[in-house]
Amino acid sequence: MPIALITGSSGFIGQHVLAQFPAFGWTAIGLARNPNKCRPEVLRNGSQVVQDPGNYDGFCDLLHELHPDVIIHLATRYIKDHKPSDIPDLIRSNIAYGAELLEAMRSCGVQRLVIAGTTWQHHLVDDEQYVPSNFYAATKQAFEDLVRWYVDACGFSAIALRLTDTYGPDDPRRKLFTLLQEAAQSGEPLRMSPGEQLLDPLFVDDAVAAFAVAAHRILQVDHRFEIYRVTPGQPRKLRDIVTLWCQITGKTPTIMWGGVPYREREVMRPWTGGKVLPGWKPAVSLEEGIRRCWKQQT
Amino acid sequence: MPIALITGSSGFIGQHVLAQFPAFGWTAIGLARNPNKCRPEVLRNGSQVVQDPGNYDGFCDLLHELHPDVIIHLATRYIKDHKPSDIPDLIRSNIAYGAELLEAMRSCGVQRLVIAGTTWQHHLVDDEQYVPSNFYAATKQAFEDLVRWYVDACGFSAIALRLTDTYGPDDPRRKLFTLLQEAAQSGEPLRMSPGEQLLDPLFVDDAVAAFAVAAHRILQVDHRFEIYRVTPGQPRKLRDIVTLWCQITGKTPTIMWGGVPYREREVMRPWTGGKVLPGWKPAVSLEEGIRRCWKQQT
Repeated sequence: MPIALITGSSGFIGQHVLAQFPAFGWTAIGLARNPNKCRPEVLRNGSQVVQDPGNYDGFCDLLHELHPDVIIHLATRYIKDHKPSDIPDLIRSNIAYGAELLEAMRSCGVQRLVIAGTTWQHHLVDDEQYVPSNFYAATKQAFEDLVRWYVDACGFSAIALRLTDTYGPDDPRRKLFTLLQEAAQSGEPLRMSPGEQLLDPLFVDDAVAAFAVAAHRILQVDHRFEIYRVTPGQPRKLRDIVTLWCQITGKTPTIMWGGVPYREREVMRPWTGGKVLPGWKPAVSLEEGIRRCWKQQT
Repeated sequence: MPIALITGSSGFIGQHVLAQFPAFGWTAIGLARNPNKCRPEVLRNGSQVVQDPGNYDGFCDLLHELHPDVIIHLATRYIKDHKPSDIPDLIRSNIAYGAELLEAMRSCGVQRLVIAGTTWQHHLVDDEQYVPSNFYAATKQAFEDLVRWYVDACGFSAIALRLTDTYGPDDPRRKLFTLLQEAAQSGEPLRMSPGEQLLDPLFVDDAVAAFAVAAHRILQVDHRFEIYRVTPGQPRKLRDIVTLWCQITGKTPTIMWGGVPYREREVMRPWTGGKVLPGWKPAVSLEEGIRRCWKQQT
């Protein structure tokens, strides 16, 4: 079986990739700064997780030892609205870390790479052009510019996926469904924006499937840098998603719609530009996804 | 007079900008990690150089104190062919440093910026597309991706200049004319590539004039990111440039043409894509530029 080396494997998507990649025909080896953060069930299928060295020399040792066929680069620092003090860590995690990894790949002859980007690299909805919604998205684009050199000058092949917001069981991030559940439990009203923005949430299993499709594809693609959109293509208003969640869970949190204004530079419609990853389509509807999240929590 | 704050002001171009910007109607204040590196004559016209804090808090203090109208961001780490050990410093100097500066500008309401890029961001000669000639050029492009967010989301105005190779008096970098002089002096043969590549060297005073034109322009341009080529547009073969140098200086270094192969990914023709900076044209011919370099050295 081909070997996939996965960075950021103790993160939300990373753990699901580790857990599910063997079923897609891969030997999966994860890197994590703290391997103990991985839930034990993630490793039941034979996947491993090892200490992330985080620097060029350490990456070289690992690549020489493991001979991975593909790197799935998921390690990232995600901050929707950054503060000045976040800048050094955003640069280090989203650019510098990956640059050391790329350079180690070059030195060790490992040349195939799948990276995770965000639809927020395209604030103009219908356009392929780079216009970042936030600084986080800008760091993703900046890293891709470094990748470009390794593809053009060093014979690498790379696929960058542009993912929309992901959700699923075991998400440690405080996102919509968690907030709704907390509000239902506490009885405290939840202040939200007016809620007219369209969202297109991606269930984590569908995200994992996209990485598997991209990993297989990159084995056959030589010396190219391909960029694909990974979105379900079923945008709905935030308000309607909340209504759906309430129907499925039977919970009735108190929502104060318009209790906070839209964020500056709120994304009102999800990106529809670019090309969808060939061979991938979403398998989990929003209804089913919410059900699975809820079932896992109760 | 408007105030220009210049990063990297102890570098080759930076010192010439400090020395000449007052003549273009600017108060020039330079930042340098080591202000003593600036030659004393650079500061004779009233320009100042201060300690570069190199981080967000320090930049904020300076911007609050100085209220610059424009930042001329020249600080850079230039490495034509990098080694793995160069990666951290290239990321730090060419991306992370500038990110802290951008964030301080955002916090302090300083929104006008001119940055120095390279024609090597366009390895495909006739095209506007980003295709980096080397990793250094990739870091320049990556930084521009960050700038893009500050322009689109924070109301900044920026001009990025794409400069071709610069030359001039007081260049501490070991480049062509220095090597020729050393070879003439030592009598040792100088091994060079076959020498058929076309170069379009930019005299440093013409580079300074381009920054002055861009600095004036950015005072009048709102909320835009403009990118311009700054090249003399007089490409000549390396061999012919060496012949010209020998004619002007009367020196006869021994050149072994083809003594070394072309570099991997040698740039054989200078970039001709994009738009030339409006209002700028080169004033110093290559003949005159070589004469001035030579005169200053003898």
